[in-house]
Amino acid sequence: MPDHLPPQGPNVTTGPLPASRKLHVGGQLHPQIRVAMREIEVSGGEPPLRVYDTSGPYTDARVVTDIGRGLAPHRHDWIVARGDVEHIAGRAQKPEDDGLKAGEERRVPLFDRQGRLPLRAKAGKAVTQLAYARAGIVTPEMEYIAIRENMGRAAALGMKRGGESFGAAIPDHVTPEFVRDEVARGRAIIPANINHPESEPMIIGRNFLVKINANIGNSAVSSSVAEEVDKLVWAIRWGADNVMDLSTGRNIHTTREWILRNSPVPIGTVPIYQALEKVGGKAEELTWEIFRDTLIEQAEQGVDYFTIHAGVRLAYVPLTAERVTGIVSRGGSIMAKWCLAHHKESFLYEKFPEICEIMRAYDVSFSLGDGLRPGSIADANDRAQFAELETLGELTKVAWARDVQVMIEGPGHVPMHKIKINMEKQLDACGEAPFYTLGPLTTDIAPGYDHITSGIGAAMIGWFGCAMLCYVTPKEHLGLPDRDDVKTGVITYKIAAHAADLAKGHPAAQLRDDALSRARFEFRWRDQFNLGLDPETAEKFHDQTLPAEGAKLAHFCSMCGPKFCSMKITQEIRDAAQKGMDEMSETFRGNGGAIYLPPVAAGD
Amino acid sequence: MPDHLPPQGPNVTTGPLPASRKLHVGGQLHPQIRVAMREIEVSGGEPPLRVYDTSGPYTDARVVTDIGRGLAPHRHDWIVARGDVEHIAGRAQKPEDDGLKAGEERRVPLFDRQGRLPLRAKAGKAVTQLAYARAGIVTPEMEYIAIRENMGRAAALGMKRGGESFGAAIPDHVTPEFVRDEVARGRAIIPANINHPESEPMIIGRNFLVKINANIGNSAVSSSVAEEVDKLVWAIRWGADNVMDLSTGRNIHTTREWILRNSPVPIGTVPIYQALEKVGGKAEELTWEIFRDTLIEQAEQGVDYFTIHAGVRLAYVPLTAERVTGIVSRGGSIMAKWCLAHHKESFLYEKFPEICEIMRAYDVSFSLGDGLRPGSIADANDRAQFAELETLGELTKVAWARDVQVMIEGPGHVPMHKIKINMEKQLDACGEAPFYTLGPLTTDIAPGYDHITSGIGAAMIGWFGCAMLCYVTPKEHLGLPDRDDVKTGVITYKIAAHAADLAKGHPAAQLRDDALSRARFEFRWRDQFNLGLDPETAEKFHDQTLPAEGAKLAHFCSMCGPKFCSMKITQEIRDAAQKGMDEMSETFRGNGGAIYLPPVAAGD
Repeated sequence: MPDHLPPQGPNVTTGPLPASRKLHVGGQLHPQIRVAMREIEVSGGEPPLRVYDTSGPYTDARVVTDIGRGLAPHRHDWIVARGDVEHIAGRAQKPEDDGLKAGEERRVPLFDRQGRLPLRAKAGKAVTQLAYARAGIVTPEMEYIAIRENMGRAAALGMKRGGESFGAAIPDHVTPEFVRDEVARGRAIIPANINHPESEPMIIGRNFLVKINANIGNSAVSSSVAEEVDKLVWAIRWGADNVMDLSTGRNIHTTREWILRNSPVPIGTVPIYQALEKVGGKAEELTWEIFRDTLIEQAEQGVDYFTIHAGVRLAYVPLTAERVTGIVSRGGSIMAKWCLAHHKESFLYEKFPEICEIMRAYDVSFSLGDGLRPGSIADANDRAQFAELETLGELTKVAWARDVQVMIEGPGHVPMHKIKINMEKQLDACGEAPFYTLGPLTTDIAPGYDHITSGIGAAMIGWFGCAMLCYVTPKEHLGLPDRDDVKTGVITYKIAAHAADLAKGHPAAQLRDDALSRARFEFRWRDQFNLGLDPETAEKFHDQTLPAEGAKLAHFCSMCGPKFCSMKITQEIRDAAQKGMDEMSETFRGNGGAIYLPPVAAGD
Repeated sequence: MPDHLPPQGPNVTTGPLPASRKLHVGGQLHPQIRVAMREIEVSGGEPPLRVYDTSGPYTDARVVTDIGRGLAPHRHDWIVARGDVEHIAGRAQKPEDDGLKAGEERRVPLFDRQGRLPLRAKAGKAVTQLAYARAGIVTPEMEYIAIRENMGRAAALGMKRGGESFGAAIPDHVTPEFVRDEVARGRAIIPANINHPESEPMIIGRNFLVKINANIGNSAVSSSVAEEVDKLVWAIRWGADNVMDLSTGRNIHTTREWILRNSPVPIGTVPIYQALEKVGGKAEELTWEIFRDTLIEQAEQGVDYFTIHAGVRLAYVPLTAERVTGIVSRGGSIMAKWCLAHHKESFLYEKFPEICEIMRAYDVSFSLGDGLRPGSIADANDRAQFAELETLGELTKVAWARDVQVMIEGPGHVPMHKIKINMEKQLDACGEAPFYTLGPLTTDIAPGYDHITSGIGAAMIGWFGCAMLCYVTPKEHLGLPDRDDVKTGVITYKIAAHAADLAKGHPAAQLRDDALSRARFEFRWRDQFNLGLDPETAEKFHDQTLPAEGAKLAHFCSMCGPKFCSMKITQEIRDAAQKGMDEMSETFRGNGGAIYLPPVAAGD
């Protein structure tokens, strides 16, 4: 086994999903772009259905991927062509980046960068998509996104728009110029570090499709590099738009390198986790210098967005003392502890402008962390939470003034009746910067099922305007998610995001529902499986009751059996209705014009 | 094996849930009643927590159940004491009740009724809870329910009421008189057939806790009597408030007898399914006489509510012809076919007053079926659906005029933005009769996960005022639910119902959330498992990451590991905050009154 491979070898899942093929749509402004989509073949004389595809080259039958080499850096030329970046030697990797003590041996293999050097903005340049958007430049990333959001459609197909968007401004058709304008206004972000050229551009904003994020990451007690790369590829296979690497413990730097080089989706991190490892887990020993060094380390690697808990101000910490569950954000509790230990304002808040300067040099986006989010419904929407939100709003303006892209993190645990006010306050306090929430969980009583308690809240807040939903897996509060949990979490959140798109009246969101419903009604079982979010599970469930291959062609299902099938009966009704209506026209004439003879009234 | 046992023997799951015991609270108006509850023991110096308990004697460590004998008919004396019923010989069981042809042998064992005769109202008497309520009588059933809904609490414990109830009138404390009044107004029903004395009284209405229903039942292609009894006991173990037996195919009568005699929860059916079996599956051969005979057969057995699709009127059938998924309700499609075949109004509609007369003689409640409910989001809220709803409203008044209890069934497949109008129209059209919905599913694209697509809609419509939520399992649209699916469906719907109770501001609903959150925050792992809806799964998930018994006592979890734990840090913050605030008071005085020295402003 070559030493650039993780210990267990590259066991990621590849190949197309059932009845699906990868296709690429070219750009017009930027002919070199090739926008990846998935096309699902449908029988019954129906056209194939194009769906948004986050899975990258792993599901392209024509591409051989090798996680030891990483994905092709297809964005590299676009970035370099802008003429505002330069290669730098970069920060030297140190043993402590992986939590190793002096002389301690690294137990996981390094990723072989094959001499690739990091990029950084030339002195004085802002290389962010926000800076370009404000300058009126439509980047290849922006055109890529426009085509992707439309799924190759030329227009909204004249579909009737419905829904209630709560003030969002979703166009019938997404143009590259619309993308630029939304980014320029700060209402959407394109997380796209110049050192992550492997990524396929995507956008987060409430006037676009609702996105989902999957968290992965090893911890001090569990999991390996290979497992994390596998989870990444697995999560995007099922639809994760973004992945956060929340690793703690050892090998943080090396794990992240493997993830970034193999990720076609933006990768987010919480840099304070790694900084804390560098000071042996003692929050009070954190310094601005260590944190700053960690930001540069990760920016050079290519992390696309940083969660930074700069809104945890000293004055807010005592507001949490009476809570049922205090501070449950890891980053928030670290910073709160630091503030109290030093009895001063946090360096994240005080050095915020300097943090912006670093991030604009690589186009790392802010994900302003809600360190004081409620950890139980008892604590939802309290003073601590909303005080921090106000501060995040202030900081948004600071970042925007420096051309840095910003999204805002949100709760957490919130009962249904308190969800909408979260969205409204966020839009108001943060100038419409995209909201990115964890769930929220709508009750605390179901450990083991928090993908569901939170999927309810996620669908609702997505509808109300949340731009990205951070998934929660069944293991939340209990343990680290394994492969199955990751899939369950992703599918649950795809459901929530899609339900939100439908309710917002997103044009064409319903095309997939309708195609599947037609397949269902016509007993095209294979189509029903293939058009669903998880064809394999659907087929497995079907086969548990009716395993024979013939049953997949049968014009009935196990719910009613062959003799007694409501859908079969309806087909007969349709035929009869047509016939009946023809007959009725005659009867109508015979009855002197009354469409129906008066029925016997109920109660008579 | 004695022949009164099902073929596979009585393999139902019995015994208390972890750390739980059954307790009984006595009545005051009716000292003979013993209201069953579950009490969960909690450590950490906290009081035990009482929770609503649907599981019947099966979880009572002191009771030995025998499904061959059935549960004790504890309501029998209450019913007889009212002096308005009489024993009758009853209808003789016929082979065709079980779908057997003449001479064909029954392959499942009969339940041994040990000579018990059915009850029926004396001539001219209405023996419904609605009739009693209108007469000002507080029945033992009503007092039982009052105590049960309060979970033994004497009052709402002075808890702050929150929530948004959308016009519901939820009291701080449920009195027997309140129960009577709600039933008298038709805003709540108590499904309690006089021939189902084994049932523990419960109520369905929007001013009470939101309830859930689980569907079970064999079909022509699958499952046995023993499996169905097992599913019943399993469903109520996890919290099903009602169970519907949707059996089709053979052995319908006998399966139902086994279920009823062993069920402490109300049982509902769709009598047209059995009637259809009696005419060999040919909808057009159905007659009023066969249907009427089936109603009496089932009423004498003890079915608590009947789904009757009397709102499928001839004139509405053509309204479904242009739908994406036509008519998907089994009962609806049968009646539509009948109407078209005969080109006349359905006998369910025409004979509705006679149906009422039968039902009032046994106190069978109506569950007026939505035969034209949408089977895809494309068809949601269309003319066919709402035309039928108006008719259900008319029929409600007809039933009420005859003292028969009524609830109304609702959809189905509805995108989020169209859910609320369903609730509003139902309340308006049906005079606040309780609404009972299937989901609704908020998207059609996730076969295999429709417990989740529908759990989202269920939580929302429960919040808006729906009184009972019919579960959907992961097998929906694909196959028949097995034991695991039943559990997943029930837990998902308990989550939805509880999230709704919280959002409505139900007094004391949050007690369980808060108890669990405190346990979580204090690392009382066992308490966290035991207070959850599914202690076994929570513990299993925890142990997958940290299997050692010691880890259940550890003051950390697998998410962060021992060194780096946000909850541990928060505890330190609490201590520090207290200390800090003490110190700050001094600093405050030293600084001439400024609580905090002005921080360096962001951006400076």
